[in-house]
Amino acid sequence: MSSLKELSALFESQFKERQFPEQPQQLYDAAQYLLTLGGKRIRPVLCLMANELFGEINKDTFHVANAIELFHNFTLVHDDIMDKSAIRRGQPTVHTKYNEPTALLAGDVMLVTGYEHLNKIQTKYLPRILSLFNKTAKEVCEGQQLDMEFENRETVSFEEYETMITLKTSVALAASMELGAIMGGAGLHNQHHLYEFGKFLGVSFQVQDDYLDAFGDPQKFGKTPGGDIVANKKTFLLIHALNVADNDTKASLNQLFLSKDEHKVESVLQIYKDCGVDDWARQLKNEYYQKAMIHLEEVAVIEKRKGPLKELAAYLLNRSV
Amino acid sequence: MSSLKELSALFESQFKERQFPEQPQQLYDAAQYLLTLGGKRIRPVLCLMANELFGEINKDTFHVANAIELFHNFTLVHDDIMDKSAIRRGQPTVHTKYNEPTALLAGDVMLVTGYEHLNKIQTKYLPRILSLFNKTAKEVCEGQQLDMEFENRETVSFEEYETMITLKTSVALAASMELGAIMGGAGLHNQHHLYEFGKFLGVSFQVQDDYLDAFGDPQKFGKTPGGDIVANKKTFLLIHALNVADNDTKASLNQLFLSKDEHKVESVLQIYKDCGVDDWARQLKNEYYQKAMIHLEEVAVIEKRKGPLKELAAYLLNRSV
Repeated sequence: MSSLKELSALFESQFKERQFPEQPQQLYDAAQYLLTLGGKRIRPVLCLMANELFGEINKDTFHVANAIELFHNFTLVHDDIMDKSAIRRGQPTVHTKYNEPTALLAGDVMLVTGYEHLNKIQTKYLPRILSLFNKTAKEVCEGQQLDMEFENRETVSFEEYETMITLKTSVALAASMELGAIMGGAGLHNQHHLYEFGKFLGVSFQVQDDYLDAFGDPQKFGKTPGGDIVANKKTFLLIHALNVADNDTKASLNQLFLSKDEHKVESVLQIYKDCGVDDWARQLKNEYYQKAMIHLEEVAVIEKRKGPLKELAAYLLNRSV
Repeated sequence: MSSLKELSALFESQFKERQFPEQPQQLYDAAQYLLTLGGKRIRPVLCLMANELFGEINKDTFHVANAIELFHNFTLVHDDIMDKSAIRRGQPTVHTKYNEPTALLAGDVMLVTGYEHLNKIQTKYLPRILSLFNKTAKEVCEGQQLDMEFENRETVSFEEYETMITLKTSVALAASMELGAIMGGAGLHNQHHLYEFGKFLGVSFQVQDDYLDAFGDPQKFGKTPGGDIVANKKTFLLIHALNVADNDTKASLNQLFLSKDEHKVESVLQIYKDCGVDDWARQLKNEYYQKAMIHLEEVAVIEKRKGPLKELAAYLLNRSV
């Protein structure tokens, strides 16, 4: 069995080769560009780990893992166009470095190249793998659509936000697990619980992401806190604050989010603290994490084999195992 | 065996059902919108016709035909964003009716939905069908990229333009034929010649399109001639004119294309006529058409079965059979 570090290195060693033809150069350089900027490769590593739960890694799982990582990067390229984001992984986004039409097209060929990887696996696995991959791809698009719609809505309920985040972020982690499990010959019970493990891990990770953006140590976190507040983004924190605040505080919050007040971040953070949002978020993160772990318990393989997955979950959620 | 009209109706009867879920409504309405505006459905009908050459239509071919039509519409949605086109099929383009982010995402889910259709066919056909579909999808993206790059280039050779058009337009027609043939159990010889038939038919059609835009009868053609000239588009006509014109005429042409002269269209058309571009284009169209027909001759099925394909080719190229 392989550790997180070993699997990451193993994945990277075969993924780092150029994924695209040479010509037309502009198109395929744009498509390759984001892949070379790194990223944590969480999804393909989850896929490989889920696979290794059931025995030696099935070599074909690397094709699936490559498809997953290409799909993930395709969504980043298109999301960055939609959100007009200038920076990704500390570097100019694809449409900033190249141009929007080329980035749009580069995203398209990344997705198609993902399907090319899927088509390399043994035919007996193909329909089931394609089915879950397609379903997940549509759900991720649905999540992005809801995210954009929520930006223009005054109120978003906790449940609506949770659904959006699940679609936009978590189902890809969940599917990565299940795809790996399918390639390992896992039965439906194990497939299901690994999917749910990945899903709750994803939501837990998002809560942490929202929390760190507001309350993270700038030294450790590497960026100025409050980015989501400056960008008027709906987050778990904002939605909870609006749920629990009294009417006056709610009005202040809504007004602050509309304003360009230079003390906006500090003022919002103060309201968050007054409403106990920080404690609530830490607890919420733990609840999702516990749910994930309960599903991992249910997976019917000997405990020792789950070590790397627990290690990865702890690493993602900044916890000790 | 079914006529062009019968196959079109048969395809439409099952394609007209909504292809997408209900929610998120904005996303999936945008995806469905372009499909309901019609279009000639040439590609799926070519696929069905190629299939019927080899016997009764294999029901699974409809899934492939649906994937082809969804793919085609996906490229239109994304191309219209890239080209900032406001009108398609006489109606507002998707990004004009909705907005750019939603249109971009709608294109993405159209492509994924195409793959969902492919995944409904018998597993034994799946790897070969996916392989050709993926290859074609990438080539169409490459064609669009070259088309955009050519817009900013001063000179484009005939061969370069032919390559671009082949990628952007013809390979999709070619692949539609071959995909239908594969689903009909055709051998490699017949697959190859049907692919080449579709390819040359596609180039021939493009030459005609360029010709009609310049010299078409406005009454029959339904739009003012010279749209490509107004839009400074590179076409078979312009490239040939620049190839054969003397230096003075070449300079005039280049200057006209840079200008907003109100007589631009008439002046360019006059140069085209002086250079014999109209006769040349009619001949070129016929040459590609003849090449297509030679490949159709090579297909080893009895002549009578080729009737509907000849009918469709003649219909597309405005010819009598």
